[in-house]
Amino acid sequence: MRFSRLGANLSDPEIVRLMDLALGDPSLLSLAAGFTDNSVMPVNLVSEVVGELAQLGTDPEHLQYGLNNGRRGLREGIARFLAQYPGEEGLSLNPNRILITNGSQQALYLAIQILCDPGDIILVEQPTYFVFLEVLKGLGVTPIPIPVIQNGELDFKGLKEMINGLAESGDIIRVKGLYIVSYFANPSTRSMNVTEKRQLGNLLRSLPFRIPFIEDAAYRELYFHSPFPAPSHMSMAEFKGVPTLYAGTFTKPFSTGLKVGYAYCSEADWFNNLARVKGQQDFGTSNFAQAIIEQVIADGRYAEYLRKISQHYKVKMDILQETLLDGGLKEMEWDWETPTGGILLWLRAPDRIDTRLDSEFCRACIAEGVLYVPGELFFAERPPNNYIRLSFGSLDGNQLEEAGRRFAKVAKEFS
Amino acid sequence: MRFSRLGANLSDPEIVRLMDLALGDPSLLSLAAGFTDNSVMPVNLVSEVVGELAQLGTDPEHLQYGLNNGRRGLREGIARFLAQYPGEEGLSLNPNRILITNGSQQALYLAIQILCDPGDIILVEQPTYFVFLEVLKGLGVTPIPIPVIQNGELDFKGLKEMINGLAESGDIIRVKGLYIVSYFANPSTRSMNVTEKRQLGNLLRSLPFRIPFIEDAAYRELYFHSPFPAPSHMSMAEFKGVPTLYAGTFTKPFSTGLKVGYAYCSEADWFNNLARVKGQQDFGTSNFAQAIIEQVIADGRYAEYLRKISQHYKVKMDILQETLLDGGLKEMEWDWETPTGGILLWLRAPDRIDTRLDSEFCRACIAEGVLYVPGELFFAERPPNNYIRLSFGSLDGNQLEEAGRRFAKVAKEFS
Repeated sequence: MRFSRLGANLSDPEIVRLMDLALGDPSLLSLAAGFTDNSVMPVNLVSEVVGELAQLGTDPEHLQYGLNNGRRGLREGIARFLAQYPGEEGLSLNPNRILITNGSQQALYLAIQILCDPGDIILVEQPTYFVFLEVLKGLGVTPIPIPVIQNGELDFKGLKEMINGLAESGDIIRVKGLYIVSYFANPSTRSMNVTEKRQLGNLLRSLPFRIPFIEDAAYRELYFHSPFPAPSHMSMAEFKGVPTLYAGTFTKPFSTGLKVGYAYCSEADWFNNLARVKGQQDFGTSNFAQAIIEQVIADGRYAEYLRKISQHYKVKMDILQETLLDGGLKEMEWDWETPTGGILLWLRAPDRIDTRLDSEFCRACIAEGVLYVPGELFFAERPPNNYIRLSFGSLDGNQLEEAGRRFAKVAKEFS
Repeated sequence: MRFSRLGANLSDPEIVRLMDLALGDPSLLSLAAGFTDNSVMPVNLVSEVVGELAQLGTDPEHLQYGLNNGRRGLREGIARFLAQYPGEEGLSLNPNRILITNGSQQALYLAIQILCDPGDIILVEQPTYFVFLEVLKGLGVTPIPIPVIQNGELDFKGLKEMINGLAESGDIIRVKGLYIVSYFANPSTRSMNVTEKRQLGNLLRSLPFRIPFIEDAAYRELYFHSPFPAPSHMSMAEFKGVPTLYAGTFTKPFSTGLKVGYAYCSEADWFNNLARVKGQQDFGTSNFAQAIIEQVIADGRYAEYLRKISQHYKVKMDILQETLLDGGLKEMEWDWETPTGGILLWLRAPDRIDTRLDSEFCRACIAEGVLYVPGELFFAERPPNNYIRLSFGSLDGNQLEEAGRRFAKVAKEFS
């Protein structure tokens, strides 16, 4: 068959090979999948809410078509919800600029479709969310990594120089956006602090041309003790004048099965175009799933649920981390930052250890019965050989201990 | 802001003006919206099933991520369900070629994304589903109407000549598909009979080049007495060798709020590319909504529900049609075919009456308190001035009578 340019350039992402490995051996303990924990899924809560919706008078509008842009009540709820984060007290988002999407993934896809033609450029962190790299690849867009300093902070001097270089070469005309995962990032577990974020806003605002900023906050609600102290860019005067998009989701913090996310867009024309393409792709996310979430946000059960799971994931992180520490990883020169939210650990192995997908180390882990995601998948350019992403999202405490022990055993063999 | 080629060419569909009119006056009775009937929504059934899912042991997998391609059990259920249609007894679809999508709309969008570059051509019926025309417009694709004879049947001689003409001019290389709404079509209410479908298969198979065929069966389950007797192309030997896609949905017949549809694809490479782009857009339709539908298909409650609503919509069609007949429309030379399924009537006014969006007739209807969809929106080329789509989907019996009377009153004024 003949395909479009988009259709002719598709291939399965590398991660599919990893998933095939995992499916081939059910005894494997997977620290790879970015799943959340089934044991704290809001099963009864969702069931209750659906029952309540069925009782709400005679109008079963939750099973009917909804608006293309999403339920008004849900969009208002999101605006209120975001305004309760530290540093966002003054935030008063226009619900008409919030688009409900099929997870934040669709928001990112739409954003790139609207901004980029094939051959265009998006600036990304290194490492970054690998499915976003797949989106760019699928749409023929080139990711160019933003320079970072040792601990993962953006190197603003380097970024400024890079942008100047792109301006001099004329390539700046193809730069259509800058993408950051700003809270408990996948995979780095980093959050962007206030100073860093303000610096980024100032830099973008100072440019003689506009580079839209996309803030992906998919993990923001998965904090351990308290929300990360930096507000979103939406509350920062430093971003005024910069076209921006904030992508959030209820998949990770509530239920991936409901597949509801959202985008807030600073610019009316960008927003309207997102909504129009959404109208072509599916004219509206499941009204039923939206109605459930609207309800739990409105009556406070969502906030209550978040408090419960934040403790839960903190305990699980501790278990995995302690097991790795007990296994002597730090003594063997492995390193990582202890996360303060999310469901991931991002490990740097000693330089001499190759941990990539087809490495001896990776095969040894599989032979030992433990699976991880090799770090090179998260890099747009010059992938390093020695990074590993571990997720403590789905396994239970005992499984995490066992998986951690297996992993540490392999690490010891290679030390 | 600067947008991509796709982003720069978007505008609101004409229908949005109509919706704005409707929202501006709540006393309007709308025969325009293609909504199904809230009074038969499976509210309690869905609530029950969600309760059952919550009780199914300790694994709340329905709230977890599902597979990108959709739940295995749902795909198997769809394959079994389709095989129970008349003439489809031998159908044994490979569930691995079924992709679960956000309504059949997403299946159509993905299909066109994979097949077409801007400037390419899709052959369509006249009239055709207007949101599909929006999809084509959004992706820069040109719809070219297939010639039809008086009653809406395809004109195969004309189609053959048209294809020969495109071959001679060299434009055939840009023809990437042929799209038909094959059961109780929106807006024409027509279904494609067996002979017509076999002829189409033979024609497509006889060509020296491959034109993929897209069969949109969104309304197939909304039959009145019994399913339309023609099987889908999937059971027809005449289509062997032709790349084909069948798009179906649970939105219209079950719940638009669940937003679950599907595509079956004859070709592995086309299917794989659909699934890959689906992976970029949202990596999987709501697993929760899918689990609900999987359950009701498996235990027969879906089939039972379909039997119930088929009677319901038949009664509503009768009410609207009788009211129009009592109002003297046929005597005033209005004409339509009595549908045997679906939720629409497709009226042809006398040639002298202009019924378009900004016509006096349309304004008179709004003044009288009744809304319809002007027929010209469903035409890719040379739209006629005198067609009207009425939907009896959402209004109740009394409202349908009142709306029909108001409509007939205006028709009388213009006769």
